[in-house]
Amino acid sequence: MAADDVAGEAFLADCRARVAFDLLANTWNSVVLWALRDAPERPGELRARIGGISAKVLTETLRRLEFNGLVERRSYAEAPPRVEYALTPLGRTLLPSLEALGEWGFRHGDAVLEAQDRSLDQN
Amino acid sequence: MAADDVAGEAFLADCRARVAFDLLANTWNSVVLWALRDAPERPGELRARIGGISAKVLTETLRRLEFNGLVERRSYAEAPPRVEYALTPLGRTLLPSLEALGEWGFRHGDAVLEAQDRSLDQN
Repeated sequence: MAADDVAGEAFLADCRARVAFDLLANTWNSVVLWALRDAPERPGELRARIGGISAKVLTETLRRLEFNGLVERRSYAEAPPRVEYALTPLGRTLLPSLEALGEWGFRHGDAVLEAQDRSLDQN
Repeated sequence: MAADDVAGEAFLADCRARVAFDLLANTWNSVVLWALRDAPERPGELRARIGGISAKVLTETLRRLEFNGLVERRSYAEAPPRVEYALTPLGRTLLPSLEALGEWGFRHGDAVLEAQDRSLDQN
């Protein structure tokens, strides 16, 4: 799709384009999608790898991603029962955008933090 | 930066990469940045173009973006006084990622909404 197609004013009102903004309007959605990029994961492993996320928030995030069709829950009748979460094909389509955002953060994150410091100094 | 640099596990803990996720963890941040992509705008014009945003929320969003160094406020000593908001050079660097997300929404927004409908039917 050409940039011009996106650039229309309809972009700003309620429309499909805003779905992506809404999905990423929760930091944990982005982080959990990214953490699942390579392979399905059990919730415990996922939590250990991500760091700084409570079990409750991780569960809520996985349910939200599942609700939106980006992640699927797989349960295996083993002893003990095993549960994994995996990206759906739809979820995988978001990875390039997440990667671009992550790269942006690496390149420009310091500049944002410096701007925050300057703002605080002015107040 | 190569994809491998981003793929490290440090990505998931507190780090610069997460700055971008946090900035977009508010739908209005994304929408207002996008609305400013072509030219500086006065708050009233911006509000009319965006649609569905209250004056209070627009003001809060502009202050948040200014605090993070992505937007700058310009005031002109005219009669009546004129105030405009413009993207900073740092803010402009986020536009390609926002465009990619907008395109994703155009392409896959319907699939997300259908997944939501299916999820609701199952409950």
